[in-house]
Formats: sequence, C-alpha cells, structure tokens
Amino acid sequence: MKTAKTIEELQDVINAFGQNKTIGFTPTMGYLHEGHLSLIQKARTDNDIVIVSIFVNPTQFGPGEDFKAYPRNFDRDSRLAEAAGADILFVPDVSEIYPEGSTTFVLVEGVSTKKMCGSSRPTHFKGVTTVVNILFNIIKPDKAYFGQKDAQQVEIIKKMVRDLHMQLTIVTCPIIREADGLAMSSRNVYLSPEERNQALILNKSLKDIQGLYRLGETKVETLKTILRNGINTMPLAVIDYVEILDLNTLDAIEKIEAATLAAVAVRFGNTRLIDNIILE
Amino acid sequence: MKTAKTIEELQDVINAFGQNKTIGFTPTMGYLHEGHLSLIQKARTDNDIVIVSIFVNPTQFGPGEDFKAYPRNFDRDSRLAEAAGADILFVPDVSEIYPEGSTTFVLVEGVSTKKMCGSSRPTHFKGVTTVVNILFNIIKPDKAYFGQKDAQQVEIIKKMVRDLHMQLTIVTCPIIREADGLAMSSRNVYLSPEERNQALILNKSLKDIQGLYRLGETKVETLKTILRNGINTMPLAVIDYVEILDLNTLDAIEKIEAATLAAVAVRFGNTRLIDNIILE
Repeated sequence: MKTAKTIEELQDVINAFGQNKTIGFTPTMGYLHEGHLSLIQKARTDNDIVIVSIFVNPTQFGPGEDFKAYPRNFDRDSRLAEAAGADILFVPDVSEIYPEGSTTFVLVEGVSTKKMCGSSRPTHFKGVTTVVNILFNIIKPDKAYFGQKDAQQVEIIKKMVRDLHMQLTIVTCPIIREADGLAMSSRNVYLSPEERNQALILNKSLKDIQGLYRLGETKVETLKTILRNGINTMPLAVIDYVEILDLNTLDAIEKIEAATLAAVAVRFGNTRLIDNIILE
Repeated sequence: MKTAKTIEELQDVINAFGQNKTIGFTPTMGYLHEGHLSLIQKARTDNDIVIVSIFVNPTQFGPGEDFKAYPRNFDRDSRLAEAAGADILFVPDVSEIYPEGSTTFVLVEGVSTKKMCGSSRPTHFKGVTTVVNILFNIIKPDKAYFGQKDAQQVEIIKKMVRDLHMQLTIVTCPIIREADGLAMSSRNVYLSPEERNQALILNKSLKDIQGLYRLGETKVETLKTILRNGINTMPLAVIDYVEILDLNTLDAIEKIEAATLAAVAVRFGNTRLIDNIILE
C-alpha cells in the first residue's frame, strides 16, 4: 500500500497504476473500525484501485465540538486499511484540502439538511458536502462507499451527486455492530463502561419498533413514542432526536407505506451517538 | 458539428471522438457575438474537441431581471458556433440541468461575490458558480474559456475551481469591442440608438483613466472620481458601480501597485452594461 500526503503525490501514485482502471474510494476520518473496513473490503471486490482517505475535516465540526479531541491513530489505521485491501492511503493536511483563503462551499439546501443531525449541528452537512465534493474532484472515483449508519449523510451526498451531475456511483453498506449490538463508531471509545452499557438501548429500541412494524403497526406517531420511551428507560440517555422518515427524501410521514428510516441521536455524557434501522 | 440536447446524447457524441482527447469548453447563454466567437476560436486552437454550451441559466437571474426576455436565436448561434470551430453544441433544457427537486448550490463566500455585480444582483454569482460547476462535471473539460468582459465572474470561477480542486484550467480571453469601442454584449440589442451612442462613454472613460495612470496617477480615489465624472457627462447614464480593485483578489486598494481592475456597471434605460480595463 502506498501513502500520499499531497494531491500531487496522490495523482502520481494513481497514474502509476496505468490508464482505464476503475477507482473505488472510501473517505474516512480515521480511527478505523469494522464499519470502515467493510467499506474498504466492498471497494476491493468492485474496483481495480482502492483509495482510502483519512482526513478529520474541520469544516464539519461546529464550535465546541470534538474536532481537536477526535481520536486519531495513524499507524493502526494504516495497518488496518492495508489488511482490508486498500492500495492507496491519502492523508492530507488541512492546508492541502483548504489552502489559505478557501471560501467555496457546496450546500444542499432544503429540509433534508436542516432536520435530524442538521438541527443540532447546523453547519455540519455544509462541511461534509464541501469536503466530499473536494475529495471526489481530486480522486475522481467511479464508486464511493459510505456506511448506512450515517443515513442522513448518505442521502445528502447522493443528492449532491445527483444535483451537481457528478459522474460517480454512491454505494451504501450496512451498519456493522459490536457483538452486543452497539453500532460501530469511532466515538464509542469516549464512553464509560456504564454509558456503553446503557447505549445498547439504541439498537434494542430500534429492533423493538421493527418488530412492532412487522406485526402490522404502521402509525409513525405510535412507533416514535415507543422508541422514545424505550430510550428514556436509560437514565444516562439524553435524546437529541427520534425520527421516522421517508428513506429517500427524509420527508416526514404519518404512516409507513414505503421504505422508511427510523433514526435516533442520543447523548450519553459528552458523547453523541447515532443509530438507525430501515423499515420496509 | 453535432448538437446534443441531453447529457446522455452529449456523452455519446464525446465518446465517439475516442479516448484521450483534450476538451476545450466555452459555456454561453447564446445570442453569440464576436466575443463568444473569439473564445470558441481560442478553444479550437488549443484542443482536440471543442464544446460550446448554450444555456440561459435561470438561477443566475434575480426576480424582475431579464431571464424570459433574454435574447435567443438558436439557428444563428448554431451557424456561428460551427463557423468558429465548435465540434459539439450542447443545448440542454432547464430540466436537464436542474431536475425536479434540485437544491444543491455551489457558493463562493466572502467579499468577492458581495461587491460590484454581487451588490445589485445578490444571488447572481451563486447561480453562475452552480451552473458552471454542473457543466464542468458533465463535460469534464481540460480547459474552459471565459471573456475578460465578465471580469468578476472569471475571478470567482477561478476561485471556485481552485478551492474545490476541480481539475481544469480557466483561460481568460480579452474583451472584444465594436469598431466604435462598445464592448460586445448580447444585451446591446436592447439599446435605443441614443442609448447606444451615449454608452460609448464607458470605454472612453476607462481609456481616459488608463491614460492618466500611464502618466503616473496611481491614487485610486482620484481615478474613480474622474471615471465617475466622465460617465456622468452622459445624461442617460445611471451608474450602478465604479470600482478600481486588485485584479486577483478584487480587494479594495488605495494606490495602484500591482495588476488592477477598473470596472463599471451602468444602466442606460432598462439595459445594464458592464465594461472594464486592466491597469498594469
């Protein structure tokens, strides 16, 4: 596996693979876990060249969020990415992606970026779409791989790609969970043992409403109440949002009639966790 | 010359030229004049494939502006583009560029998009950068050609390309003028004979301050006053702005010490004209 720190190095390394190769790309903020590795493995099976980026993107963190504290471990990430099948690791500095004076942003307007994570993190998705747009322009992948855990992020990136006619395919991969059901996240390392134990309620409550839906309950208000009450049984859980929405548009619905996303964001101490399940 | 109305048709036509061809691209809103043709001719000398788009972009017009009235003449444009050396004319419908539900925008923030034309047309450059970004994504040119007449537009597009790491070169071509000095513009057809005659003051006043600068006058306030007074000698002229700015940053300056842009926007009746000159 080759490592590139600059755009110029990256392009030299890509060119060395020769022409007409398909490129699969997995953008990450590092501190890789099984979820990331599943994306890299999927990219490996689909493409000639697999590129993984590690870039903790400052523009998607708000003031007071954990940009500086975000966990980093390059040596471990490098070993894991290579073992999962990456050909090239791209680890740019902030100044490489955003040279001095950069003020251009890519903005998906409308309700899909305002609700859910966009409500408590109002500039988050603007930072995400901007950095993903930049990375796509630099790498020019045929396919890019994202995890379903960040369901809203995936829908917004798909919308950006469609609206701006970017020539690539977004591939979404399933949520990877710990053996006890906790969704994998780089932020799980922040949790105390007690918080981690109580955080299991997210997956459990989502599975509970999936069960009710399969038994015939389609009223969103009912399912949201049950989901909310389930999470609130844990004293350390502070709900940021509980949403049940159309999977493709993220629009509000009253009854489940098509593919539907049930998604939650919950704080345990200083750590904000997200999880979701698709009802269909 | 081939004409493509859809993105799919366009890509088939491009692919028919074979691989590894350089693409030169001239985006226009049609109603071609000698200025546009000079861009197409330059693209012809530089590239294997020359693509010209004609797309009157609704998102760069504000409410009450001339989107519907903007002059259109496809048959004439088609003949002129072919004669100037275009291989492919891309004439998409609005729904091809902005399918229903499109809400993604590319935004160059900061002072460069707020002053000058951005002051009287506050959403104009957001529409320009969005459509140019989309056209670049569809066409993937090696070089794109813009006229120096839209000096602020060129600087903002260059900034977008740099900030988002888009992989192409922006080529700027000189202003083309009528024999009497009026800068070519599709909007010149709106002018009455009297307005057209008085509009010659733009080029004349810009040349006057260029002369003074060459004689040693470098104080911006002095030059702006002379420029403003010159234009105001014409009773039909209503000044929108008179600016003398750093050419590359569009920042305000007090003295001319590096490449400098003197730019004006002036209304004659309902027609708003722009013109500029580089002092260096």
